Amino acid sequence: MSSKIKRSYIREILDVIDDDYISFAGGLPNEELFPKKQIQEATVKALENTKSLQYSSSYGLETLRKKIASFYCDKLDFPTNEEEILITSGSQQAFDIILKAIDTKIIVEEPSYLGALASFRVLNKKINSFSKISSLNALLDNKSCLYLISDFQNPSTSSYNCTQRQVLSKMINKNCSFLIEDGAYTFLDFENNFKTPISKNVEKSFHLGSFSKIVAPGLRVGWIRAKKSLIDKLLFIKESLDLHTATLNQMIFDEYLNRNNLFEHIEFINANYQEKMNFMADCLVKYIPSFKFERPKGGMFIYGKLNCDTMNLANIALKQKLAIVPAEVFYLNKKSNEIRLNFTNSTYGEIEDGIKILANILKEIKKEKRSIFLTIFDSLKAG
Amino acid sequence: MSSKIKRSYIREILDVIDDDYISFAGGLPNEELFPKKQIQEATVKALENTKSLQYSSSYGLETLRKKIASFYCDKLDFPTNEEEILITSGSQQAFDIILKAIDTKIIVEEPSYLGALASFRVLNKKINSFSKISSLNALLDNKSCLYLISDFQNPSTSSYNCTQRQVLSKMINKNCSFLIEDGAYTFLDFENNFKTPISKNVEKSFHLGSFSKIVAPGLRVGWIRAKKSLIDKLLFIKESLDLHTATLNQMIFDEYLNRNNLFEHIEFINANYQEKMNFMADCLVKYIPSFKFERPKGGMFIYGKLNCDTMNLANIALKQKLAIVPAEVFYLNKKSNEIRLNFTNSTYGEIEDGIKILANILKEIKKEKRSIFLTIFDSLKAG
Repeated sequence: MSSKIKRSYIREILDVIDDDYISFAGGLPNEELFPKKQIQEATVKALENTKSLQYSSSYGLETLRKKIASFYCDKLDFPTNEEEILITSGSQQAFDIILKAIDTKIIVEEPSYLGALASFRVLNKKINSFSKISSLNALLDNKSCLYLISDFQNPSTSSYNCTQRQVLSKMINKNCSFLIEDGAYTFLDFENNFKTPISKNVEKSFHLGSFSKIVAPGLRVGWIRAKKSLIDKLLFIKESLDLHTATLNQMIFDEYLNRNNLFEHIEFINANYQEKMNFMADCLVKYIPSFKFERPKGGMFIYGKLNCDTMNLANIALKQKLAIVPAEVFYLNKKSNEIRLNFTNSTYGEIEDGIKILANILKEIKKEKRSIFLTIFDSLKAG
Repeated sequence: MSSKIKRSYIREILDVIDDDYISFAGGLPNEELFPKKQIQEATVKALENTKSLQYSSSYGLETLRKKIASFYCDKLDFPTNEEEILITSGSQQAFDIILKAIDTKIIVEEPSYLGALASFRVLNKKINSFSKISSLNALLDNKSCLYLISDFQNPSTSSYNCTQRQVLSKMINKNCSFLIEDGAYTFLDFENNFKTPISKNVEKSFHLGSFSKIVAPGLRVGWIRAKKSLIDKLLFIKESLDLHTATLNQMIFDEYLNRNNLFEHIEFINANYQEKMNFMADCLVKYIPSFKFERPKGGMFIYGKLNCDTMNLANIALKQKLAIVPAEVFYLNKKSNEIRLNFTNSTYGEIEDGIKILANILKEIKKEKRSIFLTIFDSLKAG
């Protein structure tokens, strides 16, 4: 096994911490918002059909694929039919499926999603990165696959605007490159004003979606949207990986969508998340005025910059039972003084307490720096 | 994508056929035997805990891993603790996880399981095969991984006896090779007299297990049993593939095992399968006396030999709405006049009807051969 392959920093943190910790580290949705009762009802109905316990097709349940296709048509202005949807075991599985089917190098945004980077590394893919669209063109060719999170990017929280989307799609097509566009946060738009994916105007595109952030992640159901000729290439790979995504889980979502208005539920989540984000942002402004950030317009994170070594900061915080993510882990090979803070999976009380802990640690670090400076200054004076 | 990568013959058949067909092709368990009511109860209980819908650990649920470890201790005489079990999304996923962690060529039995072969091919692994244990030693070294199904092999239905298991474990250790031992059918022993896995005495071994054949496959929960130091190498790979196996599905099995005696259920399945196997065997003896086979002592298939081109036979049968599998697909690159017949997923009526259809096709083929022979004979006489 490559020495490069280390377990992800975040997973290692999550393994260590327990209920005594305040965690801003993971990307866990607020489980109080799970439509538990509705899922229970959908599950009882799904289990009435014995087929829910039997093997099923690698492609995925047709009725569920039809409903997912309708999200694209009705909500994203992106005409799609059920043959253009492949069900995956969570969106994470899409990387492995797609990158076994196409033989390309990978180009990622910097910073980027850790789970994607891990998947690319396990597959021994050559990874390049870009931070500005203007520098991207030089990296693209017909042996490249660009990986983007277009909406409320993890970790940076930024989204591409309409002009950028046009520039990107033209650039990708001109270079005959592939695009993997990760739509994990597309529907977590606090204004419920969903943007059309870049993929719509890209010839060789894979758009990834998931029920994890908008319903519940524990069922592990996601999907790939691509044109039929590309889906055909993925089917055999998907089959070789796990035969198919759990039948019961697909039928639960299918039943859930039969009985409920998903987009009403999404509005409910977005309202809750926006309020929590604003509360955390207010705490940051109040307790850590030196923290430079913009309030995100969607997603699950606040991302910003501090004047210190944030890896060191995260390690000290962990000893004080607070978990945060130093942004260094989201870069290929670069130091960073940014941090990522998740606001969805803590209570209001935990958010305020956590930010206070962070503020105190920063004060201590500042005091220590000052004391080191004074010692050096004194010794210089004495010398 | 490699041109070698074609969708599996069996999946293609399964895509074509509908309820009008009699299918001896798949490896589907009898869904009438699923403990549906017990799974419904376990699911209701599991869903009471909101954690069932949340992300969970890549390792898998600890309480479930403990129960699986106890199967090894109590039923297979193979001391195992929960740290030696990694939960997978079906047993199929184990191939991908393990073979990304170890860089070896693969040695398979011939014939072998199609799903494993597909996985090895997608990973571009070099595959060698052996048909006799005596020829295996020359193929093994410390860059080899041997893949075996020790009990009621798919498709051949044969098992290794105690002496062979000893010879194999010594041979594998001596060559410092890896072993992947597939236990998919281990508990489908009609005498409920489960054999200790070869893995017990192999230093670098992975033993694969699954709930698919003994409870229900639609939930996609399997596992890898290996020593802790090997499991540690697999964790990061598992995480990169799908983060973790569906939380709910793990909790359903955990609850199911809390409330039910799994091995009583297994005895019930085995009694049913043995009866069905004997019925199909009796039909074969009666209608196709030329079919050479041995009655299997476990598993889900009857395997045997005919005096004809069985790929041609299977294609003719498919036109008459009967699906069987010509054994050619189970070999790396070899013709075969064997066929595999699944008996678990058809009714008694379908079994008799299907064997009669097969018998009639064989008579037609024989008549045709005879008529061609006579035509040639006549023309020779005339000449």
